[in-house]
Amino acid sequence: MSTTAQDIYQNLELIRRKTPLVHNITNYVVMNLTANALLAVGASPVMAHAREEVEDMVNIASALVINIGTLSAPWIESMKKAARQAQKKGIPVIYDPVGAGATPYRTRTVRTLIQTVPPAVVRGNASEIIAIADDACKTKGVDSAAAAEAALDSARWLNEKYGCVVCVSGATDYIVDKNAMAMIKNGHALMPRVTGLGCTASALCGAFAAVNSDHYAATTAAMAVMGIAGEIAAEKAKGPASLQVEFLDALFNMKSEDIQKRLKIS
Amino acid sequence: MSTTAQDIYQNLELIRRKTPLVHNITNYVVMNLTANALLAVGASPVMAHAREEVEDMVNIASALVINIGTLSAPWIESMKKAARQAQKKGIPVIYDPVGAGATPYRTRTVRTLIQTVPPAVVRGNASEIIAIADDACKTKGVDSAAAAEAALDSARWLNEKYGCVVCVSGATDYIVDKNAMAMIKNGHALMPRVTGLGCTASALCGAFAAVNSDHYAATTAAMAVMGIAGEIAAEKAKGPASLQVEFLDALFNMKSEDIQKRLKIS
Amino acid sequence: MSTTAQDIYQNLELIRRKTPLVHNITNYVVMNLTANALLAVGASPVMAHAREEVEDMVNIASALVINIGTLSAPWIESMKKAARQAQKKGIPVIYDPVGAGATPYRTRTVRTLIQTVPPAVVRGNASEIIAIADDACKTKGVDSAAAAEAALDSARWLNEKYGCVVCVSGATDYIVDKNAMAMIKNGHALMPRVTGLGCTASALCGAFAAVNSDHYAATTAAMAVMGIAGEIAAEKAKGPASLQVEFLDALFNMKSEDIQKRLKIS
Repeated sequence: MSTTAQDIYQNLELIRRKTPLVHNITNYVVMNLTANALLAVGASPVMAHAREEVEDMVNIASALVINIGTLSAPWIESMKKAARQAQKKGIPVIYDPVGAGATPYRTRTVRTLIQTVPPAVVRGNASEIIAIADDACKTKGVDSAAAAEAALDSARWLNEKYGCVVCVSGATDYIVDKNAMAMIKNGHALMPRVTGLGCTASALCGAFAAVNSDHYAATTAAMAVMGIAGEIAAEKAKGPASLQVEFLDALFNMKSEDIQKRLKIS
Repeated sequence: MSTTAQDIYQNLELIRRKTPLVHNITNYVVMNLTANALLAVGASPVMAHAREEVEDMVNIASALVINIGTLSAPWIESMKKAARQAQKKGIPVIYDPVGAGATPYRTRTVRTLIQTVPPAVVRGNASEIIAIADDACKTKGVDSAAAAEAALDSARWLNEKYGCVVCVSGATDYIVDKNAMAMIKNGHALMPRVTGLGCTASALCGAFAAVNSDHYAATTAAMAVMGIAGEIAAEKAKGPASLQVEFLDALFNMKSEDIQKRLKIS
Repeated sequence: MSTTAQDIYQNLELIRRKTPLVHNITNYVVMNLTANALLAVGASPVMAHAREEVEDMVNIASALVINIGTLSAPWIESMKKAARQAQKKGIPVIYDPVGAGATPYRTRTVRTLIQTVPPAVVRGNASEIIAIADDACKTKGVDSAAAAEAALDSARWLNEKYGCVVCVSGATDYIVDKNAMAMIKNGHALMPRVTGLGCTASALCGAFAAVNSDHYAATTAAMAVMGIAGEIAAEKAKGPASLQVEFLDALFNMKSEDIQKRLKIS
């Protein structure tokens, strides 16, 4: 049963009404954008990474988003603690494997995290998803090196092994679950020229998963809303910086008709 | 004796002329916005958190702003060192208790800071101010859970115990001192949808306190300038991201007439 | 032989075609802007600071940019490790001595870094460059206290001692090498009111040095592109925040004619 524009908008309205607290342990580069995107979509963001408080923060949160973009040892310890507490409490955990494959440290960390606490959702670009599953793949930094399509095997393997929804994002976003796959063709070529829009997508997956226990539908909705906001923004933007401003404003202002009119899902 | 539009503008002009160095030990999410807001208002921002240098930085600064938004143990140690040096040197210390009440770690930290070095100013939302004073209150993340009015008792208690000016910010900002209270009704409903505008307010309190030893008047001026810039911005903004851009530009361009025309103080 | 507009544009085109990976170990305040500026100019940014991965990241990078704006002990250790690996691998290292002279910790750190691994390029404002060379100079925070001209002696001393290109940036940017000096008079007075545009300049030096082994020409090109983008932005901006948005868009959209028409080099 496929996700409709109406489903997506209902999810968005749920976020706006419930303002779920989304706990982020994320990288320094994107913290500000992540918080602003969560606020724009209607959620309530919080960033906390100290081992002294991550469990307490998880206890009042409705989703936990873990992003490995600027790792260090104390942060990894806190990520594990927070993920375990989220599992215990039963709130969805989202992993964003930024730069997996670029260094062994990142690949190892994200694999350990997934093995420690299987997530509700993993969202990455093709090379990152491949890197989690496959030792042979090396990504170049945080950009997508391999075509998204090539990552589908890895996505299916991850889904089977850990039971999580896997989103391979790119020009087409693929959302992979046990017996289902959605493809979203919204978005715009300028979006990868803004740092952290991938991280933003993962944070939105957290917001949607916080209000919808069907994590496949939630991830699909999050990626559709991302892409549609990007399209609206690109029509007004003159470059990547005005795109970012317009993107957040578009998230904030998104109406049912925007989704109805623009959604490209299959 | 109440603060007038002219007083406020004179404070702003003092900042622009003296460009006081404001030393911030603040959270990762808002560092960029904080620095840009301080520059926009005419101050000179610096961020430094290493225990090896915080005392040296305090020694060349005119105010110290401590914000607990993304705490960890080494940062707390540096906050204490910096605050002690600021006290020794006689420059104003401003605390922003981001998320106090959300976790015991944050509540405990801000209480310890206040007991170690009583500040010139504490600025927080209602639930944060209540949490500092009262164990029974729990905030939900960093948003205001309790009405600002309910926090006035806590603000008065803090003022009496520590001698500091307390600002409870919200739709109405309350500035509480021993024998005085100002209410500022400037601002706009879109402002809480931008991450870190509360933190920005605290940083501006630092800039104003750096040039005005009457910390009650300085805090009142800072909050008025914040709210007025937010109003000017909201008239041009299409959403929270354009609001942030317009807000900083409005701070930079603020004229005497803007304050004269818009100030809503009582 | 002086750098022409055509040379500069060819360098820019090389970045756009090769999308070099620029590894940044930089400060929290500017990470987002730095990443966005590198993307806007056509490079591929990555931030990584853990000692467990900096060498691996250097191994896939084409330049390393080290910025001391928010130092702490573990970061300094990683900076040294990364710089040594960059030297071993033969990729250019760029240092940005943010706030050198403001605290002994910063001055000491940047001197140690330069002695450990002499860079391809050092870029700082006048007071920072003086502080690296001279114990007698104290900067006020991160702003330029001394006139750029006064820093030229220090720049020449650094060039002679370490063989690196030195850029003293300000209203006029001076690029100093063994037998050459370029002056660039592009830019706009509003630029220092945006936090991190100096740091951005250093990151761009990394992108240009990644594609041009003549580091004097690369630095000259980077500073010219910075200044020209700032000029274009200032014509449209209403204040520092809209300047930043316009600046990144201008970087992204920069054409050969923009450089041809606007370059002020001597």
